[in-house]
Amino acid sequence: MTAPGFFKRTLTKPDGRLLLLYGRQPIMDGLVATQPLGDAPAPANPHLRWHPLRGEWVAYAGHRQNRTFLPPPEFNPLAPTQHANNPTELPAGNYDVAVFENRFPALVAGAHDPPAGVVDTRPAQGACEVVVFTRDPSSSLGKLPLDHLELVLEVWADRTAELGARDDVKYVFPFENRGVEVGVTLQHPHGQIYAYPFVPPIPALELELQKQHLQSTGRGLLHDVINNELRDSRRLLYRGAEAVAFMPAFARYGYEVWVAPLQAVPSLTLLSAAQRRDLARALKTVLLKFDGLWQRPFPYIMAIHQAPSDGEEHLEAHVHFEFYPAFRMQNRLKYLAGSEMGAGVFMADSVPEDKVKELQAVEVRLE
Amino acid sequence: MTAPGFFKRTLTKPDGRLLLLYGRQPIMDGLVATQPLGDAPAPANPHLRWHPLRGEWVAYAGHRQNRTFLPPPEFNPLAPTQHANNPTELPAGNYDVAVFENRFPALVAGAHDPPAGVVDTRPAQGACEVVVFTRDPSSSLGKLPLDHLELVLEVWADRTAELGARDDVKYVFPFENRGVEVGVTLQHPHGQIYAYPFVPPIPALELELQKQHLQSTGRGLLHDVINNELRDSRRLLYRGAEAVAFMPAFARYGYEVWVAPLQAVPSLTLLSAAQRRDLARALKTVLLKFDGLWQRPFPYIMAIHQAPSDGEEHLEAHVHFEFYPAFRMQNRLKYLAGSEMGAGVFMADSVPEDKVKELQAVEVRLE
Repeated sequence: MTAPGFFKRTLTKPDGRLLLLYGRQPIMDGLVATQPLGDAPAPANPHLRWHPLRGEWVAYAGHRQNRTFLPPPEFNPLAPTQHANNPTELPAGNYDVAVFENRFPALVAGAHDPPAGVVDTRPAQGACEVVVFTRDPSSSLGKLPLDHLELVLEVWADRTAELGARDDVKYVFPFENRGVEVGVTLQHPHGQIYAYPFVPPIPALELELQKQHLQSTGRGLLHDVINNELRDSRRLLYRGAEAVAFMPAFARYGYEVWVAPLQAVPSLTLLSAAQRRDLARALKTVLLKFDGLWQRPFPYIMAIHQAPSDGEEHLEAHVHFEFYPAFRMQNRLKYLAGSEMGAGVFMADSVPEDKVKELQAVEVRLE
Repeated sequence: MTAPGFFKRTLTKPDGRLLLLYGRQPIMDGLVATQPLGDAPAPANPHLRWHPLRGEWVAYAGHRQNRTFLPPPEFNPLAPTQHANNPTELPAGNYDVAVFENRFPALVAGAHDPPAGVVDTRPAQGACEVVVFTRDPSSSLGKLPLDHLELVLEVWADRTAELGARDDVKYVFPFENRGVEVGVTLQHPHGQIYAYPFVPPIPALELELQKQHLQSTGRGLLHDVINNELRDSRRLLYRGAEAVAFMPAFARYGYEVWVAPLQAVPSLTLLSAAQRRDLARALKTVLLKFDGLWQRPFPYIMAIHQAPSDGEEHLEAHVHFEFYPAFRMQNRLKYLAGSEMGAGVFMADSVPEDKVKELQAVEVRLE
């Protein structure tokens, strides 16, 4: 952990899985890693198969069908353990953020040989980690104090560095699925990190287009997008000294918002302390506006796109957050249907210039 | 209408929209095109904006937020008109299938100039049509008699030919969204056709990979996939003289099924009568297995991928149906979340060799 003011402790669970505890204060001694009771998951055979008509890998992990599904509060596996006879994934203690290896991983270090088949296959190497944002089951990413949110950013950076250093990892992807509307099976505030053994198709396409733009103009593509948004100003939600939040002019989802450092930092690991601080402010602004819009937790997918961990420099990359909200208007879900899923063309019912006004009208207080 | 045994009549609605009626019998004279009462939709400004980081067009159509949403049966706009004072989109009559221009189109012929913005824009040219599969609100695509299903195939071919001949149309995409689980707002059995002014990203990628395979091997890519599936045989659901249905070894969805002619016919317009007949049998088999699996209507997205309508020959193309079911197991929806939507990597909880057995076990009777 390089960032001053943050603390980290590394533990190992009884079943061998990694457990990392992070804090704004030094983490107390004597913490012992726990895990829920019950049988270990059935033997996994995670593997990848090549989809020849889409040119992408598909991940298969048969044991995930039985993963924990919306447990009652007393069986929340992400809350700190309260009774020794009912251990959860996390011990009690004074940490703020915890990371551990998913009990039902779709990608695993040292994955064994895949079954021979009629398409190309390969072992599903990589990692699936759970990032618990807080010990408080009733909190949320947006409710965290700013310095706690900064710690989360530092945790993502720490995991990007450590996972990205592995030979079998080419791309580290932190994300959050929030709300039952996007399929969340555990309500405790948490995100996930997938470390893929290849650069996934969506970041790969973004990076390729960013590279082409950099080569032809000498400028960063997202940097240009941000400068256009700053100049136009109609779709801005936050503008700080180091970070910006906006609804892109080309938003595909009704309330899609992007958050990024103003400068083209390729990866979370390269953020300065000032950039991290302002990014936390931008993120908290967006998250509070989301929850304030209808006075209810606002479901979304949050994707962090950054440079691959393939040893190259990736000057074209510009780390950013993309939020894909589940609703297109109050009480109306956005369904991805024929045009979106079968053709790849998003159909929006509204223009960003109108939708952003709803979020702009929500007042938020950061501290 | 070239196919013998099918009949077609062309009408115009009071508001100028096209109405096409198709039948297995000659269509009666004297039918008058109708439309629902009420104000015409607010003026549309459909347009496309370029997403520079994904390299794709996004379609915007502000008036679609107010489109008809799950009306009660007496206001079903897709049922034949029963009372002159309560007209629907369709007249009473002896037709089997009807097609009309969507009242809330996201793509329109002669779309006007898009607003100037900070990203590239263009008019949302093209067409959005509704295909009503039957006059019976309680039927479904799979319940139709085989010759009625053949007619639907011929209707799709007819629209592909007519829309594809337009200068502003480069790709004709017939699809069906089925079930409230995929966002369907009208329960009457129907599909849609989008005619895009460009080749959409997903078919474009498929075609590019098919072209590369054809150039390097001299064989069709889907043709090779099909032959591998026939040889392996574990994932087959239907095997006729001219058509096949199978769960691909690289299925991304739990119950994903593909249906295709055995030979590499590029487009629906080029199907022989024998191919169309056997495709109808393959489709009906799959649809009845879907509905028989849990004895309930089975929600899915059905996408038809075929050659572009750009005047080129497209020997690499091989028309096929891809079904993306909404459920990954009984009562459990498949949510597309962080990995799928943010990275482009599908995570399957099961392997096709297991899932296909559930569908194989469902017995169906075609006639």
